[in-house]
Order: sequence, then C-alpha cells, then structure tokens
Amino acid sequence: MTLLRMHVGGALRAARLSQSRSLRDVAKSARVSLGYLSEVERGQKEASSELLNAICDALGLTLSSLMSDVALSIHASQMPALTVARDAA
Amino acid sequence: MTLLRMHVGGALRAARLSQSRSLRDVAKSARVSLGYLSEVERGQKEASSELLNAICDALGLTLSSLMSDVALSIHASQMPALTVARDAA
Repeated sequence: MTLLRMHVGGALRAARLSQSRSLRDVAKSARVSLGYLSEVERGQKEASSELLNAICDALGLTLSSLMSDVALSIHASQMPALTVARDAA
Repeated sequence: MTLLRMHVGGALRAARLSQSRSLRDVAKSARVSLGYLSEVERGQKEASSELLNAICDALGLTLSSLMSDVALSIHASQMPALTVARDAA
C-alpha cells in the first residue's frame, strides 16, 4: 500500500542528504527532536502540518516544492507497469 | 501559514463536491466517521496516511492524483505576487 508519510519522509531525507546535512543539524534548525525527525524520514510517524513546515524551513525548501516531489514519487510508485515497460525497452 | 492539511482537506472536498456526493456517503464508503471526514475536509484534523487512502478509494481517486492537486494548490497559494500580476494584466 502506498502511504503518504513514506513518500513525505523519503522526500525530506533525500533533500537533507542532497545538502550533506545530519539529522542532528536539521532537527536542531527545525526545533524538533532528532528521534522525531528520524521517524518522520523513515515514514514511521505522520508529521503534523506545522512541524512539516518547520522541517521544510530548516531545509530551505518550500512546502510547494516538497509536495511536488512527493506527488512525483507517489506517481512513480503507482505506475509499476510503466516502470517495467521502460526497463524492458 | 500554508498548512498541508488545509490543502489536503480542500482537495478532498472539491473532489467530493465535483461528484455531487454527501459527506455521509463518502464517509460510509471510506469507513470513517462523518465527523472525522468533515474535520479532515476543513483542515482541522490531520488525516493518517491509511485513512487518507481509504477516503481516496471512496472517491475513486488515486493518492497520486490527489497529491498532484494538493501540490498545485499549495503552489498557487505560495505565489500571491503572480496572482496579483495576472489579475492586473
């Protein structure tokens, strides 16, 4: 099953890693606990809208750009046939 | 402040109204309470990822298409200058 929180977490993690930043650094900037951010990134916890904004701010992302990444990620995950066809081409 | 749950709720509500369906009908299909769905639509409650999927199923939407709508909605809300410029043109 495709779960929104898995894709949100994956997009946040990808953004953080692209900036070569630690969980500790981003959690501190966002004023959330390291454990909370880690659980959100792994899709184990639903981020509240307010804390999602704080994490986006800490990463220098707009919510708009994060959710565009999330929409694309979900779209890709819901199109397995296309992926198979592309891989086979 | 732009809150994800406001845009998710708005997109769910728009989808339901475009199908001329009642809160009661969609809540029953999704097996959530009417009060819960109403609060989610008004952006007063964060929908869990699992219940968001159930609501999407009840509306015949993929999570992908819902989140594309949400991303566009957030993008539009974060571009006030563009809206003003367009209105003035």
